Amino acid sequence: MQQSFLSNIQYPSDLRKLSPDQLPKLARELRDFVINIVATKEGHLGASLGVIELTIALHYIFDTPNDLLVWDVGHQAYPHKILTGRKDIFHTNRQLDGISGFPKRNESDYDTFGVGHSSTSISAVLGMAIASKLKGNITKQHIAVIGDASIASGMAFEGLNHAGVTDTNMLVILNDNAIGIDPSVGALKEYLTKAKIGVRPRKNNIIEALNFNYFGPIDGHDLPMLLKTLEKLKTTKGPKLLHIITTKGKGLKQAEENQVKYHAPGKFDASTGDLISKDNTGLPPKFQDVFGFTILELARKNKKIIGITPAMPTGSSLKYMMKEMPDRAFDVGIAEQHAVTLAAGMATQGLIPFCTIYSTFLQRAYDQVIHDVALQNLPVIFCVDRAGIVGADGATHHGVFDIAYLTCIPNMIVAAPANEIELRHLLYTASLGLNHPIAIRYPRGRGHIIDWEVPMQKLQIGKATRLKTGAKIAVISTGIIAHNVTKAIETIEETISHYHFCFIKPLDIDLLKQILQNYNTIITVEDGVIKGGFGSSILDFANQHSFKNTIITLGIPDQFIHHGTVDQLHDICGISPEKILNTINTFL
Amino acid sequence: MQQSFLSNIQYPSDLRKLSPDQLPKLARELRDFVINIVATKEGHLGASLGVIELTIALHYIFDTPNDLLVWDVGHQAYPHKILTGRKDIFHTNRQLDGISGFPKRNESDYDTFGVGHSSTSISAVLGMAIASKLKGNITKQHIAVIGDASIASGMAFEGLNHAGVTDTNMLVILNDNAIGIDPSVGALKEYLTKAKIGVRPRKNNIIEALNFNYFGPIDGHDLPMLLKTLEKLKTTKGPKLLHIITTKGKGLKQAEENQVKYHAPGKFDASTGDLISKDNTGLPPKFQDVFGFTILELARKNKKIIGITPAMPTGSSLKYMMKEMPDRAFDVGIAEQHAVTLAAGMATQGLIPFCTIYSTFLQRAYDQVIHDVALQNLPVIFCVDRAGIVGADGATHHGVFDIAYLTCIPNMIVAAPANEIELRHLLYTASLGLNHPIAIRYPRGRGHIIDWEVPMQKLQIGKATRLKTGAKIAVISTGIIAHNVTKAIETIEETISHYHFCFIKPLDIDLLKQILQNYNTIITVEDGVIKGGFGSSILDFANQHSFKNTIITLGIPDQFIHHGTVDQLHDICGISPEKILNTINTFL
Repeated sequence: MQQSFLSNIQYPSDLRKLSPDQLPKLARELRDFVINIVATKEGHLGASLGVIELTIALHYIFDTPNDLLVWDVGHQAYPHKILTGRKDIFHTNRQLDGISGFPKRNESDYDTFGVGHSSTSISAVLGMAIASKLKGNITKQHIAVIGDASIASGMAFEGLNHAGVTDTNMLVILNDNAIGIDPSVGALKEYLTKAKIGVRPRKNNIIEALNFNYFGPIDGHDLPMLLKTLEKLKTTKGPKLLHIITTKGKGLKQAEENQVKYHAPGKFDASTGDLISKDNTGLPPKFQDVFGFTILELARKNKKIIGITPAMPTGSSLKYMMKEMPDRAFDVGIAEQHAVTLAAGMATQGLIPFCTIYSTFLQRAYDQVIHDVALQNLPVIFCVDRAGIVGADGATHHGVFDIAYLTCIPNMIVAAPANEIELRHLLYTASLGLNHPIAIRYPRGRGHIIDWEVPMQKLQIGKATRLKTGAKIAVISTGIIAHNVTKAIETIEETISHYHFCFIKPLDIDLLKQILQNYNTIITVEDGVIKGGFGSSILDFANQHSFKNTIITLGIPDQFIHHGTVDQLHDICGISPEKILNTINTFL
Repeated sequence: MQQSFLSNIQYPSDLRKLSPDQLPKLARELRDFVINIVATKEGHLGASLGVIELTIALHYIFDTPNDLLVWDVGHQAYPHKILTGRKDIFHTNRQLDGISGFPKRNESDYDTFGVGHSSTSISAVLGMAIASKLKGNITKQHIAVIGDASIASGMAFEGLNHAGVTDTNMLVILNDNAIGIDPSVGALKEYLTKAKIGVRPRKNNIIEALNFNYFGPIDGHDLPMLLKTLEKLKTTKGPKLLHIITTKGKGLKQAEENQVKYHAPGKFDASTGDLISKDNTGLPPKFQDVFGFTILELARKNKKIIGITPAMPTGSSLKYMMKEMPDRAFDVGIAEQHAVTLAAGMATQGLIPFCTIYSTFLQRAYDQVIHDVALQNLPVIFCVDRAGIVGADGATHHGVFDIAYLTCIPNMIVAAPANEIELRHLLYTASLGLNHPIAIRYPRGRGHIIDWEVPMQKLQIGKATRLKTGAKIAVISTGIIAHNVTKAIETIEETISHYHFCFIKPLDIDLLKQILQNYNTIITVEDGVIKGGFGSSILDFANQHSFKNTIITLGIPDQFIHHGTVDQLHDICGISPEKILNTINTFL
């Protein structure tokens, strides 16, 4: 289709020159543009296709960027980016030095708030709206677009609860498509479903109970209806919520029919929508599947084993257990705090809860890890997924702080397997009961070992291993980054001893003493922040025991790392094989 | 009053031997018992007086500890403790080696879950209820008692949202007294108020929207009504919520009339209720008041300054600003996550938000600090109150992790003033705009300087100071613990150089290099965990620059520290003046 309208649009000011009846055609062009680029460049598809009409309507009716618009989570913001000055560089999405996959303040004035984690939009927009009120601006509008999965998170409720007692010009658009990355869950979701089909009266609803003026539900793909409604809301004072119903993946048949798969489908054929099937034969498994299949295997033998995920059944691969044992594997929605304390409650009754949470999202439940789990020394097993650099999702999604924020907590065991087999053994070991909480961190994606389904072994807590023996320098790594070390020292291995510390806490102090006695120069390598990290623990130990070795700590420096491939970002951080080798050579 | 009933009760089994018509007299005895002991031993009063009848009714009707009962927050659990085996040791409440002021699993089988932070009870109880269901126990009840301030926190909403789609035997008792420590706020509170006075229909309410069976509201001091209602609920399957209306401080006139003051009133006259007025003349101010009066002073001159507290206006002393500038100082309720992102939203619009949160509660907003503030490098000012050991509130309330969990975040400035005047200067300095977020940590209670209202000065970020000069050993401290160091070295000061690092991040690297060059032995002292703490940063720096000094890091060891006086706990941790001196003498 010829892009007669879209080709003339760089900014919303261009969009506003169109007449309302031209917008449906623009919507088709914009949808095609998104599909064509994501088909080859990859990225988040379904959410963006679901808000094509909404995005056009918002920028058409409101005076962005003066009116302030925040897209919750932000993976639905591709059409927004395309209409706000980034159409011509949209093909660089999620690539190193390209634009971010999420709204980002330093990328555009139209990106009023950086997002990535869910459910922040209401609080952020309320802060902006209060600021406008204090400045005496009574006409400016402040708009949060939030999905039905995200609004069910506690943080969103806190924002609504506060906003409802203010008289700010705040518009919450509830984009209700009944799905986050996986289908939405919970009582609120059931309530919204009833509201949609008219079982619940529209008046006196849960939103109005929180003092919001409630509008809708309306069809979020009906542009004339959207325009009419937003025009009215533009001059409606006070906090208000518009409930719109949309279809995730709208306009691409396969994406509508398989919404989980097409959330971020990888490469596909733009004309047919068919996925370009990758030949995964002979590839090592994803760590997620090692977790997912192993917990299922363990759970079949031990009825006490429970699985919990906050809204990531597919991403974490807990879905396998959820399918076979729906009464013992729980998707609790975007509710990390609840997930952790739920697990703690279960552990008090002798169950063995595996709580799988992405490293970056476990930050949401930090207090619960300390207060509800570790302080009570409850044997909850945290499967800390997507630990380390995650790649294209960028700064909001890297799991680089967990070693620092977990190892300072008393009672915690913190482990990082070097490969799929060790992850399997760790899961098994944890299931046997450790009398302590344990966090097992592993990365996003595939490892390097194909035949991982070996008989499970009980590991000794706090035991490290020597992978290579050499004469001059000791390299100590933890977790999957061992692989980069192995590659780094391939050509010089007779000079390097390489140790893998599966346990970051407790450390293998006997082996560590030997290393400190035998090697003057020690290089630590980790896929996490240096400050407070694994290397820092090694340094603390050496200092406590009056060792005066030269210790070099490699890891993520004290800055936020943005998007790119994992290899590119490892290189930037100095933990690619090449950079590790360079560091070694400096000291050889 | 003669304690004819209470004296015969050690456990609920004794309670259950009474007839229902004897319970009101027991309630009077129990109320007197609480008043008499708290009057002399201090502690939380108002919340416990409000649940005397509820506590009796719960243990009378339910088969505790087989039926599982969790008291949210737990400062209302004194009557529970007295009726469950701890009457005779209740006078040791909150003292070193005495019982805890909060329910604690290792203290009693009746304390099914350790509490201290709010809003955890629903998640914990749901975990227990799911465990019972999986074990095939269909009669056991699982009860969460939660206040109206706590149920408005996001975490509680997450728990309700999940519980509502289960068929577990779960009873949530909403103890609605319209106050937490300070009066409750928010839209939900307004809604509950309407429910109480009958403006909202009882049916079709917000609780039922979440699939809970709703009962009430009933008078929570009406024992016959409580008994009748709980008897009925005992055999009601599925998730249900009983809304009871109580009066905080019930039965002590002054406590009912001044609920904020009598939350934890200190010593008072048990017969009259009159507070035993302390003569504060000549005492140094509380750090909280230094914060509270200074922000007010600053805000009078700069309209951009905003104050935010999540439910601690009195405890933090933000109340002064709230009173004078209600449009610019916000109590957002127990909503730490929202508080932080609200501040971030305000900062994007050029406001200068001071977000005051207790160190232990900032753990609730860790992700928001990283993701919404630091990643965007927004100049939010965190006033991290009650940092360090807090004393009688114990393990759940010590603010000992913040240095570790904050300094690993890029872009953050982390500071700890040595005294009231430096806090004042820091607040002023931060208000001038730093282009970075800053966390200013200070302790609970009074400092040591009386004349603190000096002209404000702009401090140089990252600048440390030398307090004493001596020949042999350098002691480097951060924050108020400098005072303990000063006392420790009084008798040996010619041998000790004492440096105060107001800035934990960034470090004063020039001065630090000098210290490392001039002193072989360096002792760091901090009121926070050693792992990942200030001393660890000093060590990292020394290591990076190849210094081989002897560095001893003093602080909180890797274990949870329980309750006692601050001085007692400092001594246990090795950071009392005596213990610091001992350490110094070892190296002199």
